[in-house]
Amino acid sequence: METITAQQAMEAANQAAFLTNNLWILIATVLVFVMHLGFSALEAGFVQRKNTVNILFKNAMIIAIGLLTYCLVGFNLMYPGADFAGKFFGFGGFGLNPSEADLTSAYGNYTYWADFIFQGMFAATAATIVSGAVAERIKLGPFLLIATLLVAICYPITGMWKWGGGWLDAMGFYDFAGSTLVHAMGGAAALAVVIVLGPRIGKYTESGIKPIPGHNMPLAAIGVFLLWFGWFGFNGGSVLSADAASVSLVFVTTSLAAAAGAVGAFIVSYLKFKSHDLSMVLNGILGGLVGITAGADQMGPTSAILIGFIAGMIIPFSVIFFDKIKIDDPVGATSVHLVCGIWGTLAVGIFGKMAGMGQLLTQLIGTLSVCAFTFTFAFGVAFLIKKAVGIRVSEEEEERGLDVSEHGASAYQDMENIAYNFSVK
Amino acid sequence: METITAQQAMEAANQAAFLTNNLWILIATVLVFVMHLGFSALEAGFVQRKNTVNILFKNAMIIAIGLLTYCLVGFNLMYPGADFAGKFFGFGGFGLNPSEADLTSAYGNYTYWADFIFQGMFAATAATIVSGAVAERIKLGPFLLIATLLVAICYPITGMWKWGGGWLDAMGFYDFAGSTLVHAMGGAAALAVVIVLGPRIGKYTESGIKPIPGHNMPLAAIGVFLLWFGWFGFNGGSVLSADAASVSLVFVTTSLAAAAGAVGAFIVSYLKFKSHDLSMVLNGILGGLVGITAGADQMGPTSAILIGFIAGMIIPFSVIFFDKIKIDDPVGATSVHLVCGIWGTLAVGIFGKMAGMGQLLTQLIGTLSVCAFTFTFAFGVAFLIKKAVGIRVSEEEEERGLDVSEHGASAYQDMENIAYNFSVK
Amino acid sequence: METITAQQAMEAANQAAFLTNNLWILIATVLVFVMHLGFSALEAGFVQRKNTVNILFKNAMIIAIGLLTYCLVGFNLMYPGADFAGKFFGFGGFGLNPSEADLTSAYGNYTYWADFIFQGMFAATAATIVSGAVAERIKLGPFLLIATLLVAICYPITGMWKWGGGWLDAMGFYDFAGSTLVHAMGGAAALAVVIVLGPRIGKYTESGIKPIPGHNMPLAAIGVFLLWFGWFGFNGGSVLSADAASVSLVFVTTSLAAAAGAVGAFIVSYLKFKSHDLSMVLNGILGGLVGITAGADQMGPTSAILIGFIAGMIIPFSVIFFDKIKIDDPVGATSVHLVCGIWGTLAVGIFGKMAGMGQLLTQLIGTLSVCAFTFTFAFGVAFLIKKAVGIRVSEEEEERGLDVSEHGASAYQDMENIAYNFSVK
Repeated sequence: METITAQQAMEAANQAAFLTNNLWILIATVLVFVMHLGFSALEAGFVQRKNTVNILFKNAMIIAIGLLTYCLVGFNLMYPGADFAGKFFGFGGFGLNPSEADLTSAYGNYTYWADFIFQGMFAATAATIVSGAVAERIKLGPFLLIATLLVAICYPITGMWKWGGGWLDAMGFYDFAGSTLVHAMGGAAALAVVIVLGPRIGKYTESGIKPIPGHNMPLAAIGVFLLWFGWFGFNGGSVLSADAASVSLVFVTTSLAAAAGAVGAFIVSYLKFKSHDLSMVLNGILGGLVGITAGADQMGPTSAILIGFIAGMIIPFSVIFFDKIKIDDPVGATSVHLVCGIWGTLAVGIFGKMAGMGQLLTQLIGTLSVCAFTFTFAFGVAFLIKKAVGIRVSEEEEERGLDVSEHGASAYQDMENIAYNFSVK
Repeated sequence: METITAQQAMEAANQAAFLTNNLWILIATVLVFVMHLGFSALEAGFVQRKNTVNILFKNAMIIAIGLLTYCLVGFNLMYPGADFAGKFFGFGGFGLNPSEADLTSAYGNYTYWADFIFQGMFAATAATIVSGAVAERIKLGPFLLIATLLVAICYPITGMWKWGGGWLDAMGFYDFAGSTLVHAMGGAAALAVVIVLGPRIGKYTESGIKPIPGHNMPLAAIGVFLLWFGWFGFNGGSVLSADAASVSLVFVTTSLAAAAGAVGAFIVSYLKFKSHDLSMVLNGILGGLVGITAGADQMGPTSAILIGFIAGMIIPFSVIFFDKIKIDDPVGATSVHLVCGIWGTLAVGIFGKMAGMGQLLTQLIGTLSVCAFTFTFAFGVAFLIKKAVGIRVSEEEEERGLDVSEHGASAYQDMENIAYNFSVK
Repeated sequence: METITAQQAMEAANQAAFLTNNLWILIATVLVFVMHLGFSALEAGFVQRKNTVNILFKNAMIIAIGLLTYCLVGFNLMYPGADFAGKFFGFGGFGLNPSEADLTSAYGNYTYWADFIFQGMFAATAATIVSGAVAERIKLGPFLLIATLLVAICYPITGMWKWGGGWLDAMGFYDFAGSTLVHAMGGAAALAVVIVLGPRIGKYTESGIKPIPGHNMPLAAIGVFLLWFGWFGFNGGSVLSADAASVSLVFVTTSLAAAAGAVGAFIVSYLKFKSHDLSMVLNGILGGLVGITAGADQMGPTSAILIGFIAGMIIPFSVIFFDKIKIDDPVGATSVHLVCGIWGTLAVGIFGKMAGMGQLLTQLIGTLSVCAFTFTFAFGVAFLIKKAVGIRVSEEEEERGLDVSEHGASAYQDMENIAYNFSVK
């Protein structure tokens, strides 16, 4: 029998740790995947019944197109490696082209394939943020084109600035899991497209702002719970290993911020509207989650609670503000992702281990740069599409609902019959 | 190059095992989190349409308040450590105050933070059990106050009796994952509040007991599947490590008991009602899960099947019994959690490795003590609230539905319009 | 202090790796469990409102009966071990009877109990495939009998041919995670029962084929997302360890095939119907997932995309084909599971590491053998039941809906009231 050396035993121990680290990245991938279901359910619940099939269709296509385009170009734009890489832009080639070394050895704490699929799931979430904000009046084709360009080009470029070792990384900008790089980015794109698109018919009338409530609150609540569920992978996986201390802390800060976000939104919306508004509380949870994302590994529990609480309090004010300036966002995506994303990014300079005036300034520069680039990109694309082929369905189609006009279908066929029979009597 | 010693290799191997153990506690936390979504969906499905927003709102707030109060006091009440600890009551201080040793070294098989977040998710489930039983007529504010006090004070105290090393632990009481400490406890609290509250208007009439069916059975079914899903973490995580033999066995016993619970409820409800009652089968699954929870690590597959089967058979009898004595529980929470929780606790003394007359007696003492303490606590709190500010909405509000009266909203806006237009014609 | 030897350190390292491997099989079990919820939601969404309780009831009972019968006989039929094992049939006894060696030592990369529960969850999915295809007109009792016999006897026998070391395994047939052994098998059984059963009333009329749209598209979409979610465990767990390279690759191929399936179905259904058909895209995702399942560990990303894309393109053609020959399958289960299952099995001989004429032929023999055996088994059972006690509800019951006739219930009670009140006016 061969004698085992301590060196061999150490290698086996390292291999066992690698197995666990890689497994966590894969499980985190599964959790981030669920966020796509969460967004689908949330957005479907918050739109009117007549636009439900449309929103589900868009969300199913986004995850599909997102993964394929991220495979084709996005991954190599975001992590260009040595190939053509600058601090602002670089490109490592088309498709997935792992080198021998990538495949046979550990790629950090995980494999090349695990890295791709985790990052790909992340990338597709950015486009999903847009779909809710532009719901109920955007044409399907233009929307899919915008979403594709966002995932394939815009998101990887700004993502590379920090996570691919670009200029924001070099200047000390910190964004742990993407308050800016995913959420503010997606929110800025949403805002740009909403401006090009204009509000829904009947939303802002001479007699005031008309609320257009969602058609299925259980669906919306399921969506928010599933998003929180997925966020354990979104933030927890961003540790990029199963490191016990870091992942555990991230779970605590993420959960406490979400909980505090609910309470913050509850209090402010009760004081402002004297009613218990479920959609505010749900968006408060999301605001808390977005807010903690930039610094989830840098905070203690008290800071996490404060960050989430403030994010939750921001939500009702922000929703009202956007309505006042006639930015019509049916699901509140700009408030949740853009506003709380900026807040969370700045919070890294205010709370926790990295707090400091210098850091705060760096955070401000970083988040504004990403938002400005994304807004410009998305505005440009949406504007060109509007001029070229039109971006919005006709008034008649909008009033009839996109389910019939774009899909020739209805989400609840039997109920449609009841409603129809009723209206003709 | 430094030479690696066997000692160093052993430490690396232990560290790798620690990584996996900690990761499992975190993943189990995520699964237990999903139970809150499961409860939300189940309860929303089992109530009338007009109370849907209300039940979703309560469930979203419970998880938020539950985590925050468990952070503030609950965790330190339940695991008081050396500070001020008696066998009946102890308190380790406010907030999360890990010592240096807690943070820098392994805390058992996992970190201090993993311990907190896993236990916190558990704690919040106990309050969720109450929300279904008291649905459709409790005021929102009083409910939230009761839920808060349960999570913050009552649950940690009785939990400490066993899991914090208190008097029940000292006398040999066994409750692996909480048939008593979570489920019977939550069920006893539910029963107390239901008694203070009284039945829904129109439930018990002179002409007999009127069934008030739930408004959305797919939602209820989704809830039960998600609860089973989460139970893998609830029971599996209670091993407190990823120990291969124990966690695997727990998965088998948990699943077989759930399956047998469905069959038990199916058979009894078919024999009694000559119909295939979905809500009985769904509650049978839950009954089986609650029943196996106390001894999931102590049973072989046959015992697990028997425990679950009996729990499932109990459900229809228990539901009918509570209706006969005019305890109005819209979702059957007392039958599932209180009755099957007590059954499961006793089953540890009847089946499996610990079976024996002495153990059975200990189990009886343990479960009755926890139930009695909790019932008294919850009854007292609910009674005081009732006297001070009232606990129940007005008759008019109840008939109109809590969605409108408490939230000024409706869960399915479009459908509301159909119903409204119909009623005015 | 004892000195630690390198041998001891190596054993500890191996034990740590075993812990992770076993944990992954258990987590994969949890994910496969979610597929039962996915099927429930998908099928409930695709049937008419009046048959919703029925489909939920069947799915809840299938997972229960499936696990119990797999425990009683299935597991020992599929993996007979040394007892009475031939290449075509073998049986290792009733119940779970682990030997001392099974329990005390590692059973491959996981425990005996982990093996059982993972395989049991798999087994139950095969029966679930049938329930959608036969929905809206099959009697409950006969259905449950057919499902039980499929899980208890048919699935383990054909499964043993490959995974239990039977004749297909000996001849080099490859089916990584069950394109044939689970999906084509379930689809072939579905086809057989559908033929015995006949189409729904009013589906194929003299004036043409009448579409009968599903009643709840968000439910169907949730189902598909959850199935994809579960597929990470279905395919990822089939690696039978947490091997970093294999599981990571399987995650990538599985996701890319699902994404390409959506795009393939999107394109073909748009070209054929000039509309954006959500149900086609959802089934395209499932087709891609079924297609990649046989070779998920053998493909690079490009092959995976091609396999999924072709599977997605097959879906609309297949759905139309089955409608033309008057095979009435309300959810498209035969197209998704049978047709794409065969395609995916053949694809192992066309793409990836094992491609070759000989392999293609072996794949063809394997998939046709399993389909032929299963079809014959299911047809025989269904035919005998039809002759003995009848398999189909009466015309009146079918038109009224199975919820009322089999369960005396309705899935959406309040809505029922609206519809009823409307119809009597």
